Amino acid sequence: METLEEFQKFRTAMNRQIEGSDHLGMKRFFALDHQAYEPGPLDTKTKELLGLVASTALRCDDCITYHLVRCAEEGWKRGEVIDALNVALMVGGSITIPHVRRAFARMQEIQGLEP
Amino acid sequence: METLEEFQKFRTAMNRQIEGSDHLGMKRFFALDHQAYEPGPLDTKTKELLGLVASTALRCDDCITYHLVRCAEEGWKRGEVIDALNVALMVGGSITIPHVRRAFARMQEIQGLEP
Amino acid sequence: METLEEFQKFRTAMNRQIEGSDHLGMKRFFALDHQAYEPGPLDTKTKELLGLVASTALRCDDCITYHLVRCAEEGWKRGEVIDALNVALMVGGSITIPHVRRAFARMQEIQGLEP
Amino acid sequence: METLEEFQKFRTAMNRQIEGSDHLGMKRFFALDHQAYEPGPLDTKTKELLGLVASTALRCDDCITYHLVRCAEEGWKRGEVIDALNVALMVGGSITIPHVRRAFARMQEIQGLEP
Amino acid sequence: METLEEFQKFRTAMNRQIEGSDHLGMKRFFALDHQAYEPGPLDTKTKELLGLVASTALRCDDCITYHLVRCAEEGWKRGEVIDALNVALMVGGSITIPHVRRAFARMQEIQGLEP
Amino acid sequence: METLEEFQKFRTAMNRQIEGSDHLGMKRFFALDHQAYEPGPLDTKTKELLGLVASTALRCDDCITYHLVRCAEEGWKRGEVIDALNVALMVGGSITIPHVRRAFARMQEIQGLEP
Repeated sequence: METLEEFQKFRTAMNRQIEGSDHLGMKRFFALDHQAYEPGPLDTKTKELLGLVASTALRCDDCITYHLVRCAEEGWKRGEVIDALNVALMVGGSITIPHVRRAFARMQEIQGLEP
Repeated sequence: METLEEFQKFRTAMNRQIEGSDHLGMKRFFALDHQAYEPGPLDTKTKELLGLVASTALRCDDCITYHLVRCAEEGWKRGEVIDALNVALMVGGSITIPHVRRAFARMQEIQGLEP
Repeated sequence: METLEEFQKFRTAMNRQIEGSDHLGMKRFFALDHQAYEPGPLDTKTKELLGLVASTALRCDDCITYHLVRCAEEGWKRGEVIDALNVALMVGGSITIPHVRRAFARMQEIQGLEP
Repeated sequence: METLEEFQKFRTAMNRQIEGSDHLGMKRFFALDHQAYEPGPLDTKTKELLGLVASTALRCDDCITYHLVRCAEEGWKRGEVIDALNVALMVGGSITIPHVRRAFARMQEIQGLEP
Repeated sequence: METLEEFQKFRTAMNRQIEGSDHLGMKRFFALDHQAYEPGPLDTKTKELLGLVASTALRCDDCITYHLVRCAEEGWKRGEVIDALNVALMVGGSITIPHVRRAFARMQEIQGLEP
Repeated sequence: METLEEFQKFRTAMNRQIEGSDHLGMKRFFALDHQAYEPGPLDTKTKELLGLVASTALRCDDCITYHLVRCAEEGWKRGEVIDALNVALMVGGSITIPHVRRAFARMQEIQGLEP
């Protein structure tokens, strides 16, 4: 498993390339994706937890990593994050277990979510 | 689209058959699924919203209906539910649009979530 | 939920249209799909149970109906089929529950799998 | 299976409700989804076929219906649409067969795609 | 691709962390998952093959590795395992091919499943 | 991320093992998969783009790599490929973003698709 730093470096470099490709649709998609987590009827903290659970149910490790970092930044505690992962595990089944394992491994690198 | 009442009648009848089948594993799975939404580090209200978003991202109409009813019971307002559906739409893409449409149709039948 | 007879009538009519479309690739795909369940290192009975579990994990009601009928024809008993559905439920999570419910409803129509 | 007219009536009514909900994010998502099929480096005709194949691989009947109608409007012929569905069938496997069957049933209602 | 030994080391370490997190729901889920493969109306040997096919259809490499090891322990032969993978390939389509490739690579490390 | 050369080496080695396993069904599946992209009512160039979009919507990195290489061989230009990826991104949602990132990284190695 790559480190959190490696993940973020690759993510930044590729996002730069995607934005540099000048495809207006993609740029707008990325902007809209960002806006979906801004405060609205629900606050950002709640939405980041929703994003984490959706990412786990759909089994995307990079998305899980991204939302774990954001959940920590928004103030969710380790026990709360694990309780949310448990909902995703229940909904998504044992096929999500490897992703839950990697979520636990990733949390070791994220301040506020360490064991 | 069947009515909410038809859905609930079918759901109850079949859950009774599943429990009547005396398969211990299935019974325990249903019990564990129920417990996942009970208060823990996160409260039930938050967890039901997580369940709604996971169900929408994974595109299961019956699961969406179930969690919409539960979200209303837990006190979520129409605007908040729509904001949560928007996160699922963003994460899951336009392939979830037909499920979002049926979620809007279903909300017409659920007290507290009507337009 | 349509009846088993309605399902089979629609399935036969549409399979006829697909074969009548003279697309060689589709015809071969349908033939190859049929052959995958013929006796090989594993017998047909075992393979039909594999098909049922794959269909349930991937959440396809029509595929579940088809394999339930075939499982009954191959001699699987109700208790064994339920035990197989439980593996799919465990692997696929609570999102598969509505499909398991419809599998139980369908079994009421299939000789050898009734409650 | 509902008729094409029923599908379109429901779709229009619910899209109106979604837009009437005044959720800016959802409105923008719907607009961006529309724009993704407008002419760019690829023309609209090609993109609608891409949308059809993605919808079939992801197994969404409503999305398939929508893109079948659009493919006919853009001038794709029945044989070409079937050839595209075959790619989706190959990529997505036998689990997509029920959706391919319903695509064939739907084509009976769409001018230019009838058998 | 990591070695089987690396996979098992990571799996054991993370399972220990998950169990150490004292989330009762997760612990029960892991226990229930284990029980689903214990003898019932179907024997363990059959259920492990079901687990392998479900894992391949749902495209989870770690789950495939786990069930390949268990299938070998339960006495399934290489030819039988390949015949089961073929059902998953047929149901899940060409999108499962990379996972089938990695299953073949993994079998080289598993006693009883080597070429 | 492994290099394109490493991917192709592993792919070739494992395809050889699969074909060497003498499972007639798998061999036929691989042949049929190949034939699906041969000229028919649609030409190969169009079909490879369909394969790319289906692979991205279904989120399979190896399949994306394979079809990117084939798309370049068939003469698709970088801007056109990005426009096709945008359709997949729209249909599949933000969960496909990590795969789009890796597609951009892979294009750096493919002649004709470099930035």
